[in-house]
Amino acid sequence: MARAWKPEGTRVRVGQVEVGGPGFVVMAGPCAVEGMEQTEQTAAAVAAAGAHILRGGVFKPRTSPYSFQGMGEPGLRVLAEAARKVGLPIVSEVMESTQLPLMEDYVDVLQVGARNMQNFPLLRALGKVRKPVLLKRGLAATIQEWLLAAEYVLDGGNDQVILCERGIRTFETATRNTLDLAAVAVAKQRTHLPVIVDPSHATGEPELIQPMALAAAAAGADGLMIEVHPRPEQALCDGQQALTPERFQQLMRRLPGVLSAVDRHLWMPDLPAHVVGA
Amino acid sequence: MARAWKPEGTRVRVGQVEVGGPGFVVMAGPCAVEGMEQTEQTAAAVAAAGAHILRGGVFKPRTSPYSFQGMGEPGLRVLAEAARKVGLPIVSEVMESTQLPLMEDYVDVLQVGARNMQNFPLLRALGKVRKPVLLKRGLAATIQEWLLAAEYVLDGGNDQVILCERGIRTFETATRNTLDLAAVAVAKQRTHLPVIVDPSHATGEPELIQPMALAAAAAGADGLMIEVHPRPEQALCDGQQALTPERFQQLMRRLPGVLSAVDRHLWMPDLPAHVVGA
Amino acid sequence: MARAWKPEGTRVRVGQVEVGGPGFVVMAGPCAVEGMEQTEQTAAAVAAAGAHILRGGVFKPRTSPYSFQGMGEPGLRVLAEAARKVGLPIVSEVMESTQLPLMEDYVDVLQVGARNMQNFPLLRALGKVRKPVLLKRGLAATIQEWLLAAEYVLDGGNDQVILCERGIRTFETATRNTLDLAAVAVAKQRTHLPVIVDPSHATGEPELIQPMALAAAAAGADGLMIEVHPRPEQALCDGQQALTPERFQQLMRRLPGVLSAVDRHLWMPDLPAHVVGA
Amino acid sequence: MARAWKPEGTRVRVGQVEVGGPGFVVMAGPCAVEGMEQTEQTAAAVAAAGAHILRGGVFKPRTSPYSFQGMGEPGLRVLAEAARKVGLPIVSEVMESTQLPLMEDYVDVLQVGARNMQNFPLLRALGKVRKPVLLKRGLAATIQEWLLAAEYVLDGGNDQVILCERGIRTFETATRNTLDLAAVAVAKQRTHLPVIVDPSHATGEPELIQPMALAAAAAGADGLMIEVHPRPEQALCDGQQALTPERFQQLMRRLPGVLSAVDRHLWMPDLPAHVVGA
Repeated sequence: MARAWKPEGTRVRVGQVEVGGPGFVVMAGPCAVEGMEQTEQTAAAVAAAGAHILRGGVFKPRTSPYSFQGMGEPGLRVLAEAARKVGLPIVSEVMESTQLPLMEDYVDVLQVGARNMQNFPLLRALGKVRKPVLLKRGLAATIQEWLLAAEYVLDGGNDQVILCERGIRTFETATRNTLDLAAVAVAKQRTHLPVIVDPSHATGEPELIQPMALAAAAAGADGLMIEVHPRPEQALCDGQQALTPERFQQLMRRLPGVLSAVDRHLWMPDLPAHVVGA
Repeated sequence: MARAWKPEGTRVRVGQVEVGGPGFVVMAGPCAVEGMEQTEQTAAAVAAAGAHILRGGVFKPRTSPYSFQGMGEPGLRVLAEAARKVGLPIVSEVMESTQLPLMEDYVDVLQVGARNMQNFPLLRALGKVRKPVLLKRGLAATIQEWLLAAEYVLDGGNDQVILCERGIRTFETATRNTLDLAAVAVAKQRTHLPVIVDPSHATGEPELIQPMALAAAAAGADGLMIEVHPRPEQALCDGQQALTPERFQQLMRRLPGVLSAVDRHLWMPDLPAHVVGA
Repeated sequence: MARAWKPEGTRVRVGQVEVGGPGFVVMAGPCAVEGMEQTEQTAAAVAAAGAHILRGGVFKPRTSPYSFQGMGEPGLRVLAEAARKVGLPIVSEVMESTQLPLMEDYVDVLQVGARNMQNFPLLRALGKVRKPVLLKRGLAATIQEWLLAAEYVLDGGNDQVILCERGIRTFETATRNTLDLAAVAVAKQRTHLPVIVDPSHATGEPELIQPMALAAAAAGADGLMIEVHPRPEQALCDGQQALTPERFQQLMRRLPGVLSAVDRHLWMPDLPAHVVGA
Repeated sequence: MARAWKPEGTRVRVGQVEVGGPGFVVMAGPCAVEGMEQTEQTAAAVAAAGAHILRGGVFKPRTSPYSFQGMGEPGLRVLAEAARKVGLPIVSEVMESTQLPLMEDYVDVLQVGARNMQNFPLLRALGKVRKPVLLKRGLAATIQEWLLAAEYVLDGGNDQVILCERGIRTFETATRNTLDLAAVAVAKQRTHLPVIVDPSHATGEPELIQPMALAAAAAGADGLMIEVHPRPEQALCDGQQALTPERFQQLMRRLPGVLSAVDRHLWMPDLPAHVVGA
């Protein structure tokens, strides 16, 4: 997947959205799908603010077996219904290959979480799927290991891979992880795959999400993945790092200026043919 | 699994071998099963030198999809045959839950590799199995996360878990990883589970394996896992860190002195009842 | 130095330049002063491109005693002469308190390097000086330790401190260090001191300097420190990370757009009173 | 200082004690000299338990300017008096070159702390001194950087350097630092200098000091540096990691067994000539 083989870069289609072209793509939604009301509220809010793809987890990899583990299949139905109402495609995390047949019915982008970046049977299974894959960088993965993990998917025949930098583990404890924006630039140099950034997991701190999201845009990222929750303090998972809809909207207002300064813009659909033809 | 709940510690039975009691247990063998000759030679060598359990990988998690990925099921038959001839039980890595029915037929201890430490579906599946589990610490896992990963297995109903420290990822590049022996002492304080050390992956360097193995014994570890290959320079996987049979034997000669200084000894079978009775 | 005590932020004066106000300040120049020609060429180039302060090292902390250690006092005279010709103030590194009387005669900002961030006798001595101090974050210093190091200078009576993030040491080897831009945002929240970014040391790679410089601007940094050399391949120190004058100029052209998107601009002098009065 | 140039290893003389020969050397005492009573009590206790060198800090590098900074010169007199009474030589930390003339009058080994490992002016000054230097590894220093720091001292003409591993900074927070015992083995392979271990700073936790001290001995270290305080809970500096005299004595009883298993022993003076001759 060396950049040299495809200098123009791979563009990954998600519904009509295109990741990796000049348009900058924002994925947003709750960490975990908790129920219909929360999911619909969030979907409506992020769609209204201009997000392009709805995120939401139903299978949650949690450090402790006693934490909320996600709603599972019923959550998928909730997520799909909420997405349908606002007309957004869905990205959601898959944790093992046996979940794939189910997930494929509901989800537009299959996300591999940081903890599973080197779950090779899962990566091989995703190589056989005909849906885009979003591959998060592992907590302690070098850029080289991350790209080789993507190679497992590509080698299986699926070249629709989006990379996602989400912070690495370092000695610093003031932030949840250390966002490595240089990795975005390095990955863009070495591969033809699109690279997005998740500042929510990277920082774990709402005050830091906007500055890091803008920095990601300036650094050349192809998009963002952002956690949004209508009532962060009541969230069942990672609420401390979710943006409220208001703050998410604020961020969406700030992005175009930075994107414009690096010759990018928020993704928007092509004009219909009859308009262009006019 | 707090130590306070079971101050005497859990003893895990593997065949007649007991891990976590006063006897110190050595698991040794090739990184990967490559064929019958190599496996039998290694098994004979490590058995002769006094190892208690034969290790060998048939499903290999490799950073690159183009590296040797293990022999798979045929490798299991090779490993089982070699182990049978020398009378040793087997530890081997399982990479996903779908491999379990097959693995259970051949393997005495199911190993979870560092990259899968937080593969929660796999951990849950291992909670339902009636075989011991060897849980390696993840490359960037805190001790707390490691113990909570073990909790997934225990919570499922399987309390036969052995922890294995195998080095963490740090900035230092002179060694493959940084062996964290204090983690052994901390894990022994906090849990009642046995803790062993893998100096092969921790250092990636044959010259360092003996000093680190002796240090592990002095630090209170309950055992070791060591890679041995008859011709390290020809190994298909991690050959650069394998001990030759000669060096492995040297290490086995050195261990008893250190163990004795901390009131331990190499594990050995109980005397038969009629002898004790005599 | 809590932000709460001085919500409007400290502005550090360097000649007529102000660091920490709305104006974004760029410091640029060679890693090491090597001679009159190289220094004058670089000074002319960075001044022409719009840099505000000339950087250049004459006392160089080098990992090996056999590497070039800097020109020492003669280098200071070279640097001062080059700076005078282009009308820029100077920032240069001080390595121990005994160098201070000499340095104070030539230098406008006294830089403390990453390796000396916790050289407490040096920090105490700088607390007694009436010149601004630029304090680089240590390779493995937490944000908290960095701020407490600054506190040594402030506690001595000198509140003219500029913080500089220059990358931390992590497991990643694709870049020289890992630039921690979230640290900029955290430091700005917690203190009233200006914070700048050095993408040259952070990445060690010319291709990465522009994206990281733009990202720093988007993240809210108050300025940059950039290494520039007319012939990077011949540099006596860290040449592999220096920008050519051409690439530096390119960066300076890119910065205003990003700054504008976050309501900042490149620093420029106040208009003379009689013009304003007009 | 490559091992190849001096395969038999450098032996550093401290009074009559020899570091780097077959004898294993224990340095012990308080983190900081707080007063005559505390220092004399500790000196008496560690001497009684068999320590060979008295440690004690009078110039203390502290993260915060508001923490206790050490007694300074009066502390040196206290330390020297306490050491004289029990007949032990002294190791104490020097923080900058201007302290050297004073320190040389009182101290037998000049310690460079982790934070000053790359304080090159200090290292150069120590190259001119005719006293042994104890060089701690920096928190984030690679083994290679540590050895090159020692090279600054050797290059100045002083080959009496003892290296000290004291833990590196990693993501793990269960221990103060991560003790890197493989670094001891690597340093012993690459250089001819003696290498000791400080488990007090490495772990920050009294329960872990004995297992790590025994592990260090098993790994081939040439000695230990241990913090001891008669009333750890009242210590002015790092009390949480000090051993009580009782626990220190316990450790000293445990060491000989492990040392014997690796063909070493606690250092002891040569027999007087007339006895040997008898």
